[in-house]
Amino acid sequence: MEVINGHKKWGFQGNPELNASSISVRGVLTKLMANRNKDDKRPTIPLGRADPTEFPSYRTTPVAPDAVADATYSYNFNCYPPTVGIAEARRAVAEYLSKDFPYQLSPDDVYLTAGCTQAIEIVVSVLARPNANILFPRPGYPQYEARASCSKLEARHFDLIPEKGWEVDLDSVEALADENTVAMVIINPSNPCGNVFTYQHLKEIAETASRLGIFVISDEVYGHLAFGSNPFVPMGVFGSTVPVLTLGSIAKRWIVPGWRLGWIVTSDPNGIFHQSGFVECMKNFLDITTDPPTNMQGALTQILKHTKEDFYSKILTIIREAADILYDRIQEIPCLTCPHKPEGSMVAMVKLNLPLLEGIIDDVDFCMKLAKEESVIVLPGVTVGLKNCLRITFAVEHSALEDGLGRMKAFYHRHAKKK
Amino acid sequence: MEVINGHKKWGFQGNPELNASSISVRGVLTKLMANRNKDDKRPTIPLGRADPTEFPSYRTTPVAPDAVADATYSYNFNCYPPTVGIAEARRAVAEYLSKDFPYQLSPDDVYLTAGCTQAIEIVVSVLARPNANILFPRPGYPQYEARASCSKLEARHFDLIPEKGWEVDLDSVEALADENTVAMVIINPSNPCGNVFTYQHLKEIAETASRLGIFVISDEVYGHLAFGSNPFVPMGVFGSTVPVLTLGSIAKRWIVPGWRLGWIVTSDPNGIFHQSGFVECMKNFLDITTDPPTNMQGALTQILKHTKEDFYSKILTIIREAADILYDRIQEIPCLTCPHKPEGSMVAMVKLNLPLLEGIIDDVDFCMKLAKEESVIVLPGVTVGLKNCLRITFAVEHSALEDGLGRMKAFYHRHAKKK
Ligand SMILES: Cc1ncc(COP(=O)(O)O)c(C=O)c1O
Ligand SMILES: Cc1ncc(COP(=O)(O)O)c(C=O)c1O
Repeated sequence: MEVINGHKKWGFQGNPELNASSISVRGVLTKLMANRNKDDKRPTIPLGRADPTEFPSYRTTPVAPDAVADATYSYNFNCYPPTVGIAEARRAVAEYLSKDFPYQLSPDDVYLTAGCTQAIEIVVSVLARPNANILFPRPGYPQYEARASCSKLEARHFDLIPEKGWEVDLDSVEALADENTVAMVIINPSNPCGNVFTYQHLKEIAETASRLGIFVISDEVYGHLAFGSNPFVPMGVFGSTVPVLTLGSIAKRWIVPGWRLGWIVTSDPNGIFHQSGFVECMKNFLDITTDPPTNMQGALTQILKHTKEDFYSKILTIIREAADILYDRIQEIPCLTCPHKPEGSMVAMVKLNLPLLEGIIDDVDFCMKLAKEESVIVLPGVTVGLKNCLRITFAVEHSALEDGLGRMKAFYHRHAKKK
Repeated sequence: MEVINGHKKWGFQGNPELNASSISVRGVLTKLMANRNKDDKRPTIPLGRADPTEFPSYRTTPVAPDAVADATYSYNFNCYPPTVGIAEARRAVAEYLSKDFPYQLSPDDVYLTAGCTQAIEIVVSVLARPNANILFPRPGYPQYEARASCSKLEARHFDLIPEKGWEVDLDSVEALADENTVAMVIINPSNPCGNVFTYQHLKEIAETASRLGIFVISDEVYGHLAFGSNPFVPMGVFGSTVPVLTLGSIAKRWIVPGWRLGWIVTSDPNGIFHQSGFVECMKNFLDITTDPPTNMQGALTQILKHTKEDFYSKILTIIREAADILYDRIQEIPCLTCPHKPEGSMVAMVKLNLPLLEGIIDDVDFCMKLAKEESVIVLPGVTVGLKNCLRITFAVEHSALEDGLGRMKAFYHRHAKKK
């Protein structure tokens, strides 16, 4: 801070918590994009972010824009929304999710949010208190860490085990938890690993959390995007074993990540979220938090009700085929191995065998050089908690995926260590 | 926290900062609404919240829904937006605001937010750091206090002086500021006072803040809703005297509060926000914060460009007439006085003369009983920082306003102290 004649002049000191939280997927992708070679005339292949909206095969259902136009032209959705969300959209979410539940969710279990991003912000902010800690998966989704840091909530990490299809290392969960642990987070279908948890494994997670007396936050933003042998099972199915906060959004299944419509759902037939005061505290926080636009909430009701099964299955087929392409092509690139064939979400974790490469220091270096030389964007594993891995998004047009992986192969050959 | 067999079972302890921040306009209004008498068959008169969307006279321009439908059907706005906002909407905001500026704003000065509510959250979060403090007006808008409390930023209050048309008490600003003061907030046109600052007074505020070396945050969510003798002057006009963060949204001027589209603008031709690192820190925070929907951002471009002058002037006329009705009718209610005729925004502060009433303890009691007996909702002054005042929204259908003020008069006569 500069002081002139005894007066300071507009010094600005950053907030240390915010600075610590500044590793974000978006921040890293911006740096990679900036590192591209402007003279490369080929199109950039975006395998860094799960946003396939630019590709014609991934166009959303026409139900979606119709719903937005209808809601907007009705002039019924211009008012401030209730802070929990409009009643009809809450009911639509409860009905949509209840199809896969052993019990019926109530509209009162549903809180609408501006995407799953805001759901994370709300849940983490409300759970935070001095000296508390929360358990996150490693690798994971860095938005959790960033928000915990903003709220001064200590983040502890349990491992996901690649050899076991990226299942949760439950022993490490038991070892990390103490009386100040408020919750554990799982992401299913998994970002960044691309696996889908079995019913049996989810049951074990629920039992472990119950024993430890901690809530489970189940991030199901990729809900229903499961195309392997394990069907998608929502964690809320185990809501009577352990109170579950289910986070979701329409970003992925409907391919409208920009529309920012999500939810927090209390899957908790025993009413523990109410009794413990969590719900009241969350409602207070919602009172001071911005909401998803009322007209978009009106649209959500129609989108959930009217989307046809054939849209869902068309998208699932395209993503499944893309996952196959990824898995096959990776096997042709000696410095990369995919420990588990992706069977859900839009992304996979791939290990980087650095000793096979010349002059590449680590995953960040790999990704920066790949962006520069090949205009292919891939996320360094360190961003999601695993050094010397890559997170590759396969949900792009198949031809673009082939092109991108071809360029990665060329990149490998150019940088391969000479024997 | 309950401990069973040595294990805790889902205890939940609220976050003390969040609890402290739980006085919100929305929370208080919910309590008032709940206190109504269900047997009262008359319509509720909502004079508590600035949201006139239910009244036909306040319908938004058809340009607005057309813009949403066009943007959505283009399928160009389904992707995640850049965290600062899409380029064309940033340019549109810069052009819209520059009309009233002595210099041209750049699109890079504009950051899109999910309403002015989120703009407040972002600005307060980014300015917060240990031991810092910020200066807020009293009376004011409690969202600021709530967000400061969340961020552990100390709130200090300077007074607005009713006898001087609610001008800022600049002596109290000087007395409150110290080397840890990061900024001062003004709201112009004013919520809750309904006044509009003169060019001369804004200049004095800028000079004071400059002397103190603190940023000015100018909340102009009611920008252009000025219908008295003082024209609306944006604070950014004084951006070369003091760096100004202008907060705004389309909620009020376009009567679409539910659409959640706002902005933060750096009005700072000397580039101090950049040099001091503020902009970088804000960008990092935007990276971990949810955005306004991309399709709504696309719509914003068109709304700002295509709204016709006659829509603006129609709305202004209706609000001016409503302010006249309020001012006249208040004079017929002996226990109420309006120290300054409203000339901007949609709300006014009115003083409550409690000694004239029997069995009414304070402003909260007044509002609770008014809700119960007359189904009229009015905000207790304490919610916005001034005990034993009322904040009355006049932006409702004129007939509803007459009805509501008539009921308040009847309420007064029923509770008037017998001589
Ligand atoms: C695991 C996970 N959670 C949350 C989000 C954010 O979802 P949304 O786009 O609905 O904000 C993402 C986005 O990719 C994600 O991968
Ligand atoms: C002074 C002030 N700031 C901010 C806001 C929030 O604006 P928005 O509806 O754009 O979030 C309001 C809403 O009434 C307000 O009065």
